[in-house]
Amino acid sequence: MPETITIVKIGGQILDHEKNLSGFCEQFIALPGKKILVHGGGKLATALAEKLGIQQQMVNGRRVTDTETLKIVAMVYAGLINKQLVASLNSKGCISLGVCGADAQLITAHKRQHPTIEYGWVGDIDAVNQQLLISWLTSGITPVVAPITADASGQLLNTNADTIAAALATALSTHYRVQLVYAFEREGVLRDLGNPDSVIPLILPADYRELLAQNIIADGMIPKLENAMDTLSKGVHKVVIGNALRLSDLVAGNAGTTLTNE
Amino acid sequence: MPETITIVKIGGQILDHEKNLSGFCEQFIALPGKKILVHGGGKLATALAEKLGIQQQMVNGRRVTDTETLKIVAMVYAGLINKQLVASLNSKGCISLGVCGADAQLITAHKRQHPTIEYGWVGDIDAVNQQLLISWLTSGITPVVAPITADASGQLLNTNADTIAAALATALSTHYRVQLVYAFEREGVLRDLGNPDSVIPLILPADYRELLAQNIIADGMIPKLENAMDTLSKGVHKVVIGNALRLSDLVAGNAGTTLTNE
Repeated sequence: MPETITIVKIGGQILDHEKNLSGFCEQFIALPGKKILVHGGGKLATALAEKLGIQQQMVNGRRVTDTETLKIVAMVYAGLINKQLVASLNSKGCISLGVCGADAQLITAHKRQHPTIEYGWVGDIDAVNQQLLISWLTSGITPVVAPITADASGQLLNTNADTIAAALATALSTHYRVQLVYAFEREGVLRDLGNPDSVIPLILPADYRELLAQNIIADGMIPKLENAMDTLSKGVHKVVIGNALRLSDLVAGNAGTTLTNE
Repeated sequence: MPETITIVKIGGQILDHEKNLSGFCEQFIALPGKKILVHGGGKLATALAEKLGIQQQMVNGRRVTDTETLKIVAMVYAGLINKQLVASLNSKGCISLGVCGADAQLITAHKRQHPTIEYGWVGDIDAVNQQLLISWLTSGITPVVAPITADASGQLLNTNADTIAAALATALSTHYRVQLVYAFEREGVLRDLGNPDSVIPLILPADYRELLAQNIIADGMIPKLENAMDTLSKGVHKVVIGNALRLSDLVAGNAGTTLTNE
């Protein structure tokens, strides 16, 4: 059986609270085997944009990225959050390298083309340099990836962190047994949004289609689950969605929602 | 003879002008052999601090780094400028990896202790991980280094870019024949500050002591030259100081001021 790798995407409110983040980092470090951390940082970017008086426009949950907003997300994601995470992980003994997609052409992308919506400097992924990731992982380095990419002309692009995590997971699934964890502030996929105890522990492809048909999956969760199902169809072993502060339990299958083909 | 490596520190007004920066990047890429780029970014950080209403205090040319200012320099140096440079270099065919000292513990540092001045979150360098640099360089990657470091506790620290360039040059001088270039907006070390044509082409250690004794070297240039002379005494082959837009000429010895022991 191929070696297991765990790719964790952390987002949402966890990144905004230092104490929570520290607890998350400790659990991340304790995960056995090779691993990669992918992070977002939406709220800090929004707060900085507000302070600078730069209006933010969201379309379908995606930030419209004008030139000033691109500078903000490059600063907040690839600068502040990425380096704070890296420094924290290194201090706790996990040798980590902070990068974004633009670094050494790790993730190449192109500006999103949409028939009716102008997303601005938003990037859709073309390719992941898996050999580069493997070389870092093999030399004992844990990559920490910020959701910024670049196109062939050197233009930086804002790219969804969930999508980046999915792309890395898919790219590495030919070499490793990949488990992908979407860690955020909720307990998992809920059967009843009003009841945090209604976490659905396991979703197989047939279950997913049924949940969709029954309108049980909430709007905000659909893109995450679509991403997840897509990675499973491309070779990822399992995807777990749940509370970042229970990361060890998520990976062990004792919390959150696990999606798998098997 | 050991292989030659060129370490270029770029700073000052060059970083603020896109057209100049593009010209610089093209010359940087054309340099033969292995190379490293170290950058600052002082003016952009100052501009952002002003917009956010964060007062900046300078002591002896060094920025006093309070908590809010540290966030700004981490964002501007390690985020925006670093990733813009990396994306630009990659698009022109130079595979470059943007890092700061905190990444994979490339540069370890400690908070500056000073008997009378509180510099805030300013880092003084303890060590450079030369093996990590050599592994990147050997695999064809050009490191682009932002002047942020971290201490053993995971605290980010603001560290002078000239000093980082000197530390990298010194660390690599046991493996390579190192030429260190300080590239900025002036032509070199001037004999007469009012006359840009009075560049001193060559400074040997004896010349340096004489220039200092005669008060020919201007105050602002002294830390740069002290750094330079120090690296020469520790094994760096030569240091060149001059105009970033004449980078090829600087490295070829056809412009700027060259400092060497030989």
